[in-house]
Amino acid sequence: MSSIELIEAAAERLKGHARATPLLSSPFLDEFAGRRVLIKPECLQHTGSFKFRGAWSAISALDDAARCRGVIAYSSGNHAQGVAYAAAQHGISSVIVMPSDAPKLKIENTRALGGEVVLYDRSSESREDIGEALAAQRGLTLIRPYDEPQVIAGQGTTGLELARQARELGVTEGDVLVCCGGGGLTSGIALALDRHAPGLRARPCEPEGFDDVKRSLATGDVQGNDASSGNICDAILTPRPGQITFPILQRLCGPGLSVSEQDALHAMALAFLRLKIVLEPGGAVALAAALFRKDQIKGDAVIVVASGGNVDPQVFEQALEFLT
Amino acid sequence: MSSIELIEAAAERLKGHARATPLLSSPFLDEFAGRRVLIKPECLQHTGSFKFRGAWSAISALDDAARCRGVIAYSSGNHAQGVAYAAAQHGISSVIVMPSDAPKLKIENTRALGGEVVLYDRSSESREDIGEALAAQRGLTLIRPYDEPQVIAGQGTTGLELARQARELGVTEGDVLVCCGGGGLTSGIALALDRHAPGLRARPCEPEGFDDVKRSLATGDVQGNDASSGNICDAILTPRPGQITFPILQRLCGPGLSVSEQDALHAMALAFLRLKIVLEPGGAVALAAALFRKDQIKGDAVIVVASGGNVDPQVFEQALEFLT
Repeated sequence: MSSIELIEAAAERLKGHARATPLLSSPFLDEFAGRRVLIKPECLQHTGSFKFRGAWSAISALDDAARCRGVIAYSSGNHAQGVAYAAAQHGISSVIVMPSDAPKLKIENTRALGGEVVLYDRSSESREDIGEALAAQRGLTLIRPYDEPQVIAGQGTTGLELARQARELGVTEGDVLVCCGGGGLTSGIALALDRHAPGLRARPCEPEGFDDVKRSLATGDVQGNDASSGNICDAILTPRPGQITFPILQRLCGPGLSVSEQDALHAMALAFLRLKIVLEPGGAVALAAALFRKDQIKGDAVIVVASGGNVDPQVFEQALEFLT
Repeated sequence: MSSIELIEAAAERLKGHARATPLLSSPFLDEFAGRRVLIKPECLQHTGSFKFRGAWSAISALDDAARCRGVIAYSSGNHAQGVAYAAAQHGISSVIVMPSDAPKLKIENTRALGGEVVLYDRSSESREDIGEALAAQRGLTLIRPYDEPQVIAGQGTTGLELARQARELGVTEGDVLVCCGGGGLTSGIALALDRHAPGLRARPCEPEGFDDVKRSLATGDVQGNDASSGNICDAILTPRPGQITFPILQRLCGPGLSVSEQDALHAMALAFLRLKIVLEPGGAVALAAALFRKDQIKGDAVIVVASGGNVDPQVFEQALEFLT
């Protein structure tokens, strides 16, 4: 199957399971951005981020025998929760390999969603070694966070919905800003738009200092980040673009955009005030780009994919300070 | 036209203008409540509350000549914003009579949404006198917040959506908890359910000490509240049930429920954490009833209408304290 056929097949499998998120807007944000802004709030997706789509897609695409043996994922964040919940909803087991210093709430949530959490020590153990040993021993299938065609296909269903919803609102041209880590969501959306809304163009949005995709697109070959942590946008800090995702991004996306941590927090505050949604910093970078990088965007309308909302209250309070 | 025909006609007029809000859920809330909980987040509606539906319904139902002269409303809150924005979207003028001591942000928002704000002094002036004089002078039509059939019809479109969405999720029996002030939303939803989901029963939810509807339903005649202010759930503090709404509530609703301010704040915190939506205290009382009055609810599933999200950051931070 071609990539777009994989996405359309994933959409069939996700029907009645993933949530079709609405397309939001606010006249206040339109004025702030200097153009019409439409926001796709994937924070309202099951488990609080788009990751549920890819997880459901990958698990539902397995053959029965493999699915029954269960799945495994490495993640301390949104992918962990998406895989754990999608597996539980399929009635199968999942093992999530998480660093022992991951936030307690994320570990608890992953467990509560049905995942068997296996902790490892970041400083002395390799999660890959642990994961491979467990996978071999129990016959588990590894669900990669972005370099996996069925995961990309699941994330791409966001683009199918978005293309239809934008058309209904009369928006058929412009940029679609997407919060980008490894590029699974951005490449999936780009593939969906290429077929179903050719006037809309996906553009990856990243935190400053972790703009590997932006630089890779600009130079034409894969660039990495200097650091691997140390930014509030934890959900989208990845070392470099994916091997499968990057060629798709290169073929279909416009130039990348990057924003500061302060801009991401400010965008979270405006999403609270004007949209009544909860975004995490990494899920707010695309909105921040629409609001604070408007000179880098063309056209009368821009679409923003707000990718997730799993944020601690303390960080959210930092964002709310922009309103006082 | 009958009441249900008014609602169905309003739904036609709202199509493409009001937002069809999704139906959310979280396994964590299901566990907390001891049953399946489905949440209709009207905080995601235009202007941050369901009030836009009733305002659009009433304005779009006017004849052309009356509509062109403009509309007027008394409100310092969600109804003000709903009427101002619905009028602006119709290309007509609106006058919103607000107390001069209303929060500055609400006055600014109402103006920014297109309303002409006329301030009055609560202690020395009557908003009715001011409104009637302006209405007579300019030929404005008064849009009442709840005791108006076309406003009730607009709010009732929430019930039409909810009935269809709940059926798609396999929920055809149970209580529908609705945040209740004057009863416009609750009565509209009750009428829609009566026709389209007879196994679902609307139940008004109010703040303790301002449970006029609950007491009126229990005694069978209209009861008022002792106080008119002094509760954090400002959006739904009304002196007594409406003259048009109460007979509908009496005919179609189950018993009322009431919750404390602390329960409303706690529900806001859980909506932040588990649903990624922003609720105001008055918009969270129905969710609070589902979570903290579970012994007063029967059945395997309960539906919650979360009516609005226009909350100040300071109050939201109070709610977040429940998570630390």
